[in-house]
Amino acid sequence: MQKYKVTFLPDNKTVEVAKDTTILSAGISCGIFINSACGGDGVCGRCKIILKEGNVATQISPALDLEEKKKNIYLACLTTVHSDLQVEIPQESRMDLNASLNDIFVKSEEVESKEAILSDSIFKHSPLATKMYLELPKPTLNDTSSDLDRLLQRIRKVQALPIMQTGLTNIRQLGELLRDSDWKVTVTLGKRNDTVEIVLIEPGDTSNKNFGLSFDIGTTTLSGQLIDLNTKKILGTKATYNKQASFGSDVITRIIYARQEEGLERLHAAVTESMNQMIKELCSEHNVDLNDVSYVVCTGNTTMIHLLLRVDPTYIRREPYVPTANFLPVVRAAEAEIKINPRGLLSCVPGVSSYVGGDTTSGVLSSGLYQEEALSILIDIGTNGEIALGNKDFLVACAASAGPAFEGSGVGCGMRASSGAIQKVKVGPQDFEVTLFTIADTKPRGICGSGYISLISQMLNAGVIDKNGKIKLENHKRVRNGPSGKEFIVVFKEGADASTDIVISEADIENLKRAKAAIYSATSILVKHMNFQLTDVKKIFIAGGFGTSLDIESAIKIGLLPDLERKRFIFIGNSALAGARQMLLSSDATIQAAEIARKITYFELSVDAGYMDEYMAALFFPHTDLKRFPSLKG
Amino acid sequence: MQKYKVTFLPDNKTVEVAKDTTILSAGISCGIFINSACGGDGVCGRCKIILKEGNVATQISPALDLEEKKKNIYLACLTTVHSDLQVEIPQESRMDLNASLNDIFVKSEEVESKEAILSDSIFKHSPLATKMYLELPKPTLNDTSSDLDRLLQRIRKVQALPIMQTGLTNIRQLGELLRDSDWKVTVTLGKRNDTVEIVLIEPGDTSNKNFGLSFDIGTTTLSGQLIDLNTKKILGTKATYNKQASFGSDVITRIIYARQEEGLERLHAAVTESMNQMIKELCSEHNVDLNDVSYVVCTGNTTMIHLLLRVDPTYIRREPYVPTANFLPVVRAAEAEIKINPRGLLSCVPGVSSYVGGDTTSGVLSSGLYQEEALSILIDIGTNGEIALGNKDFLVACAASAGPAFEGSGVGCGMRASSGAIQKVKVGPQDFEVTLFTIADTKPRGICGSGYISLISQMLNAGVIDKNGKIKLENHKRVRNGPSGKEFIVVFKEGADASTDIVISEADIENLKRAKAAIYSATSILVKHMNFQLTDVKKIFIAGGFGTSLDIESAIKIGLLPDLERKRFIFIGNSALAGARQMLLSSDATIQAAEIARKITYFELSVDAGYMDEYMAALFFPHTDLKRFPSLKG
Repeated sequence: MQKYKVTFLPDNKTVEVAKDTTILSAGISCGIFINSACGGDGVCGRCKIILKEGNVATQISPALDLEEKKKNIYLACLTTVHSDLQVEIPQESRMDLNASLNDIFVKSEEVESKEAILSDSIFKHSPLATKMYLELPKPTLNDTSSDLDRLLQRIRKVQALPIMQTGLTNIRQLGELLRDSDWKVTVTLGKRNDTVEIVLIEPGDTSNKNFGLSFDIGTTTLSGQLIDLNTKKILGTKATYNKQASFGSDVITRIIYARQEEGLERLHAAVTESMNQMIKELCSEHNVDLNDVSYVVCTGNTTMIHLLLRVDPTYIRREPYVPTANFLPVVRAAEAEIKINPRGLLSCVPGVSSYVGGDTTSGVLSSGLYQEEALSILIDIGTNGEIALGNKDFLVACAASAGPAFEGSGVGCGMRASSGAIQKVKVGPQDFEVTLFTIADTKPRGICGSGYISLISQMLNAGVIDKNGKIKLENHKRVRNGPSGKEFIVVFKEGADASTDIVISEADIENLKRAKAAIYSATSILVKHMNFQLTDVKKIFIAGGFGTSLDIESAIKIGLLPDLERKRFIFIGNSALAGARQMLLSSDATIQAAEIARKITYFELSVDAGYMDEYMAALFFPHTDLKRFPSLKG
Repeated sequence: MQKYKVTFLPDNKTVEVAKDTTILSAGISCGIFINSACGGDGVCGRCKIILKEGNVATQISPALDLEEKKKNIYLACLTTVHSDLQVEIPQESRMDLNASLNDIFVKSEEVESKEAILSDSIFKHSPLATKMYLELPKPTLNDTSSDLDRLLQRIRKVQALPIMQTGLTNIRQLGELLRDSDWKVTVTLGKRNDTVEIVLIEPGDTSNKNFGLSFDIGTTTLSGQLIDLNTKKILGTKATYNKQASFGSDVITRIIYARQEEGLERLHAAVTESMNQMIKELCSEHNVDLNDVSYVVCTGNTTMIHLLLRVDPTYIRREPYVPTANFLPVVRAAEAEIKINPRGLLSCVPGVSSYVGGDTTSGVLSSGLYQEEALSILIDIGTNGEIALGNKDFLVACAASAGPAFEGSGVGCGMRASSGAIQKVKVGPQDFEVTLFTIADTKPRGICGSGYISLISQMLNAGVIDKNGKIKLENHKRVRNGPSGKEFIVVFKEGADASTDIVISEADIENLKRAKAAIYSATSILVKHMNFQLTDVKKIFIAGGFGTSLDIESAIKIGLLPDLERKRFIFIGNSALAGARQMLLSSDATIQAAEIARKITYFELSVDAGYMDEYMAALFFPHTDLKRFPSLKG
């Protein structure tokens, strides 16, 4: 087979690939991750590259204009290699993972403030990994218990554990270790399904070094926390894009990609590499030795969890939509290539069905929805929006495919909720001047989900856009025609930490409108399906990776959230991550999570006859039916 | 470092080793196993080699006579490499493992007859590995349980199993496997500590192919059986020498060897290679696919079990004599390099202490000693002789280091109880003519343990030897001076399937006398220690690798067994192997074995003030104190 060399600039990385390989694939092969929201269908236009040298074959795409074609710009997903090539990947086509992670990860303090409301867990402190320092009685001629029995007996003096497991690796080192450490050792006990495993045996007293990690693996965003399991303290939190986005922006495109040769392996590597990088950074920043981390709890939707464990997700999208497993066994983290202590354990929050995963379970857990007296709802706004309705008596959930717009992906100037992200905006009603509030008060770099919600709400208020999302304002320095149609300049590049103006285009608004319509209509249909009215819902927990703030008023104004009494809304930040942390810190929470997952009934939106109408009706700001938003009439 | 090539003849195998390496070590490096009873101390004289070419350095040894030195004969353990060498390994210095295994392994029928008395187990048939053929309901839109839940639910319909574990490997293949097999699969469930593991999931109905292996890993002899776990049928039995004997004939020399660089790894490899070879042969002879073997139960003394699992045995011989573990967890057989189904499990029979191991536990189990009303004793005659005394109320055990003589090792013409082994002898009282009975009625090749017992008893009877074991007969064609002193010719080479006469020397008799004295005095001291008389013992179970027969009368005659009513003696063959088989076939037996191991009190012979005197007094045939053997007076 004919092979060619492709060199990526400015990285100057070269990879040899077969003729007819797409540039997107070639990039992945050498660790260059190019944006691709549509999974290589040539429609999203996020994977533009500049051909510097060589011959390619390509297909026509509406996502490229004449100007761009003249500049040798191609779509990486539609363009195949026909000679040795040099291609340049512009910054805006790149998944920013390859830039310095410190820059991209959300600083802990930015996320923690909101999550604090969930951190005073109602659960007893009983972490999934505990350390126990033991001074064993030395053997004598009158006390010749074996080394292992001696250890087990000593452990059982502290804690009554009927079933304890130990691996051969530990036993092989036991004799020498006990004697070299003068019979003073620290054991790490890990909960493993319904048993307890002696995960580690270390010389001396290391009981004060007992760390764990919780992860929320989102389709678009990956968030992780390093936790001191002894003190329950969150040492650090980070978030980054899920590198898998290079293989498609939603779960369906990833499931399809997983069927390709090495597809599953690549998707698995993409997410675990990001996690390992995050683990390394978190540990290094907080002076924690990787070997002192012995437990990881991961939550995420069902597809993400399958990919994390390298389990084929194929059947999730084939009728009748059955995942391989909702409840996965606790495994050694190393089996999933997660690099903590080589003997450390990995537990996944149990899911409910193919489209309602462990992230819903952990959200229901951390929000406390499952024990509410009154009818309550949890709306987790993400690429896969999950909505759970219920109280202490019942739980029902559905999933809405909203796309990644509220996570700052698939929109022109979108970014995650990290430093420099515009998270709140005011647009003057007469002069259309824009006042900005960025995360960490730094120069604006882009717009995050809460920023877009605020911006659209303000543009509506000021009359910049109409309820269809079309830009009405004309003859103003902030309005112009851009490559994707009309756009409103939010920040001129002089005032931005960016190479171009920060804008919102009509295409972006359309994307955001669809996302909010998906969430709103799913919420509305789920409530109706259970024979309630939206007004019956007494508590609305709003979750999602919005950083420190989400302005509920704006979210109602654009029709993302239903128009209910404002005090019923509680913004709880990343509730999935908070639930995973609760499980890591408490066996009781782990047991509760399993009960929740078993209790939740899955409701499949697509089989509801009214869903499509409801969705179409929601494709306005705030809604076609203004009677649903009475408080906005004024 | 200077390196030289050593070529072994007649194998023509060459290995490169550093200067000063012993020829014994050089042989092991290239798979040539040379006898070495003393573990390289230069005293046993079992490792004679002939130097054909090259320079060596050596040390003086009493085990070589002038004649031998003239013939360029050296001891492999004392002789080091100082140039490229050619050495010949005579047949008698070789562990016969490298000959065709079929020749050496005992044929099934030869062993089974005696073991049959133990095979009608009192335990419920509930093998440690069970297969279950399942037709799963196919998922529908109304029944979307995950694949794993569907499988677990179906299993639980058949059997109530609260804790079931599954590895990621099985889960990774589950989705495709269930669909490819049209939801008809066979699961193998393996007992693993106090849980049940789904070991295998296979397409279609393979439930009739469910095999296991039981092994008795003796210091000298390794015995194994292939069992149909469904029908309880013993498909085949084999025995061979434990290749570890190249590193020393008793557990102490092996423990010392394990401290050498790579020592533990070599000892581990020696035993597992023999086991794997045996497994391969057994499976191939009985048309069993290795993949259909999913469980192995091993018994053996504590050192053998440590070495099997590659656990450092060092502390077994260091005061206060504590093993790393008596109860070892069930592990994957592959972790110990045992080659059955890669996911198959390995369980070791629990032991009691450093010198009373799982072999005693399994002997007590299979003999039924633990449930006797009357005082009973189990005497397991092996390199490490184990003696257990007790009944349903108490159990006490000790170990006697008898050496390998009764296993046909460390004695001139000794061999295991296999085809061609002389197992019974008559010596004419006037003419000293010898009548032979060999196993399988073939031409004699050597003498096995029961043969030696019979032979000594007959030689005593006929007056060929005195009660010291000295050869009194003179001027007879069967008596001559050999390299180890006087010897009695049992079979002239013309009548034998051997290159030399089959003889018994005074040195052999001395070896056998020490062995029998060790067993007898241990028995006697143990009974006395518990404040009983030997005559109080109502049942005496005699165990050991004697093949089909052990003549109790002869064993009493030579003073190996106490002089009690003959009907109290029950010869039960390899009771350790039988116990391992019972465990393999019954979870109840496994639970019982654990109870037995916990119940047995270990008695350390060497701390008993009277032991040495008792041993010295037993160094006569039958004993210094003839009053102890009243029935022999006539």
